[in-house]
Amino acid sequence: MSKLLAVGTVAFDAIETPFGKTDKILGGSGTFVGLAASQFGVKTGVVSVVGGDFPKSYLDMMENKGIDISGIEIIKEGKTFFWSGKYHNDMNSRDTLITELNVLEHFKPIVPESFKDAEIVMLGNLHPQTQSSVLDQMTSTPKLVVLDTMNFWMDIALDDLHTVLKRVDVITINDEEARQLSGEYSLVNAAKKIHSMGPKHVVIKKGEHGALLFNEGNMFYAPALPLAEVFDPTGAGDTFAGGFCGYIAKTEDISFENMKNAIIYGSNLASFCVEKFGTQRMEELTGDEVKKRLQSFRELTQFDIEIS
Amino acid sequence: MSKLLAVGTVAFDAIETPFGKTDKILGGSGTFVGLAASQFGVKTGVVSVVGGDFPKSYLDMMENKGIDISGIEIIKEGKTFFWSGKYHNDMNSRDTLITELNVLEHFKPIVPESFKDAEIVMLGNLHPQTQSSVLDQMTSTPKLVVLDTMNFWMDIALDDLHTVLKRVDVITINDEEARQLSGEYSLVNAAKKIHSMGPKHVVIKKGEHGALLFNEGNMFYAPALPLAEVFDPTGAGDTFAGGFCGYIAKTEDISFENMKNAIIYGSNLASFCVEKFGTQRMEELTGDEVKKRLQSFRELTQFDIEIS
Repeated sequence: MSKLLAVGTVAFDAIETPFGKTDKILGGSGTFVGLAASQFGVKTGVVSVVGGDFPKSYLDMMENKGIDISGIEIIKEGKTFFWSGKYHNDMNSRDTLITELNVLEHFKPIVPESFKDAEIVMLGNLHPQTQSSVLDQMTSTPKLVVLDTMNFWMDIALDDLHTVLKRVDVITINDEEARQLSGEYSLVNAAKKIHSMGPKHVVIKKGEHGALLFNEGNMFYAPALPLAEVFDPTGAGDTFAGGFCGYIAKTEDISFENMKNAIIYGSNLASFCVEKFGTQRMEELTGDEVKKRLQSFRELTQFDIEIS
Repeated sequence: MSKLLAVGTVAFDAIETPFGKTDKILGGSGTFVGLAASQFGVKTGVVSVVGGDFPKSYLDMMENKGIDISGIEIIKEGKTFFWSGKYHNDMNSRDTLITELNVLEHFKPIVPESFKDAEIVMLGNLHPQTQSSVLDQMTSTPKLVVLDTMNFWMDIALDDLHTVLKRVDVITINDEEARQLSGEYSLVNAAKKIHSMGPKHVVIKKGEHGALLFNEGNMFYAPALPLAEVFDPTGAGDTFAGGFCGYIAKTEDISFENMKNAIIYGSNLASFCVEKFGTQRMEELTGDEVKKRLQSFRELTQFDIEIS
């Protein structure tokens, strides 16, 4: 069992979907990655920052899930990062209503001593320089560095992004971002270009249309589980990434074959995440439910044709 | 080996894509369905209508592929149905430039005697009354009736569509059309509503995002093969349907398990169709190429997780 270091946001979200509306609730990429990885019983350390307004009960919940929170800095006089958004009817697009960076604005992640030798590192969607600074603190070379990013950083910090990408094994990115980063419309060609930027593995997330995994010679497709109702998509992408990293950390196998399983697990966990607002479903999720849904993924995708 | 009756258009298309532009070339849903089904060596009869301007060489090509063309009426003094369209850069949307119905306007399909007992019937995208008239001509109840339709018929002939749907086993429809027909956004809920209209099986085509197969208790997902270049998407949906029907006709097995294989075959053949303009790739396609690509579909989708 490997150690997993996850750097990301721990935040307040306020969400509006066609199903309802929340006040400030627990959110953030680090939170969702940590909760997803906790399903695998791996030692996961979350590195982030919150303000004095962040409830201790949230931190307690994370600790109870086995997440190491010693890397979550608390700035007493500061306020926690806050994001508010409203999803459209199709749940594939959303408007950001409020973004208050607060303590995130000057966030300098500090990796706890006990995680400087983590074998798996998940660099959540933050400024590429911030992501680089995490790798600089590692005392041994990680077995696998996974990076998530978004179009915002391509717009304002592309050079920094290219710099950190050279140190990354797996990039997770959505389809539009893959097109923007590569300048290629076809996702096959986009993956090829992104390989040449550093990452040996490219994971392209397509939301309700699933996710593609590429290395230089292979590709694999994990569908999203078609659901009767998507209640709140917030955190699904981070849960996917957390499931991916958690499974790799548990199995300690970075072969392409095993990464296939990892993205199926990621998609599996993401399918739960969207069933309730915020982190609620992930907090109550049991291992038996995950196993049962894995069977649904099998039925959804596995076929048996004789090639005669 | 069952007989397959396919009713649809045999037409001229003029196509513009980012890769180039054609003059009038061979097209039509009946043509693409027939060519796809010909891969399985099943006895396929195409019922359609063309004008005196339709080249004999096209009919010869179809016959050489083993397609029974006795049901293709030739109206000497009439002109063949002509469609012209231009695809946008993303290949997922297109503008229709010209639609000349010509002989299709008063098309009354006449099923040849030798196909009135066909076990598999594919009702291509035509007026629902025209689709019904084909079923009325059958002398024995088909084992499987597959219907394709589009939003146009929902707009102008919804009652007729509901009438024919009661006699249909499988409907193939794209995601937007499934939403329009059912009034449900979620495809899971849409399929449920469409089941209640008649079809025990619902196939929802999502273009580059693959296709979903539903019956009342199960669902299965066939991805589209990610391609470096999609040259011309025209006919991909009909090729998918033709592959589906051809495989079912060959195997004579209408279980859900076998329908999984059928939509994988449909997706497989569609992945070739888009590689060249019009019918070109389907005309030259060999069985060995199909088998080889089936292996790619396996690698793309099959995984092996121990559920412990």
